[in-house]
Amino acid sequence: MPSRYLARVYVSLKSGYSDPEGETTARALRGLGYGVEEVRVSKVYEVVFEAEDRREAGELVEEMCRRLLTNPTKDDYAYELREME
Amino acid sequence: MPSRYLARVYVSLKSGYSDPEGETTARALRGLGYGVEEVRVSKVYEVVFEAEDRREAGELVEEMCRRLLTNPTKDDYAYELREME
Repeated sequence: MPSRYLARVYVSLKSGYSDPEGETTARALRGLGYGVEEVRVSKVYEVVFEAEDRREAGELVEEMCRRLLTNPTKDDYAYELREME
Repeated sequence: MPSRYLARVYVSLKSGYSDPEGETTARALRGLGYGVEEVRVSKVYEVVFEAEDRREAGELVEEMCRRLLTNPTKDDYAYELREME
């Protein structure tokens, strides 16, 4: 009987990679008069999925990150995983 | 003498608003064979900026959220703020 899990996956650009959305946002904030030095934008995926147990759930999240949610060349990622009620 | 602050602003869609990017991601994960029920996508802005003190820094983050980083009609947001070295 599988259980439902919630993974929160945080995906950010590795340092050294330019972040066009962050740069545009920083420019817009400066245009509004704020003393902004830098903006970096990252993403959070909240994924609700089924797995047999916690070990399998962790393996599935890792796979989903590598295969679809992140680009291993330019992204760093981290996740939290919890079993749902 | 102003100090530098780092705000991490979490922006997510209010519940009830459909999340096209999340839906597309969920479909793609199902297409790869994962038992995914739902995906929601949110954003994190890391903003480095100057302010006179912590109180002003908090006020500036609130303003930046309302004026540019979020759409108060459809987004929820939360932030963490810390003074940088």
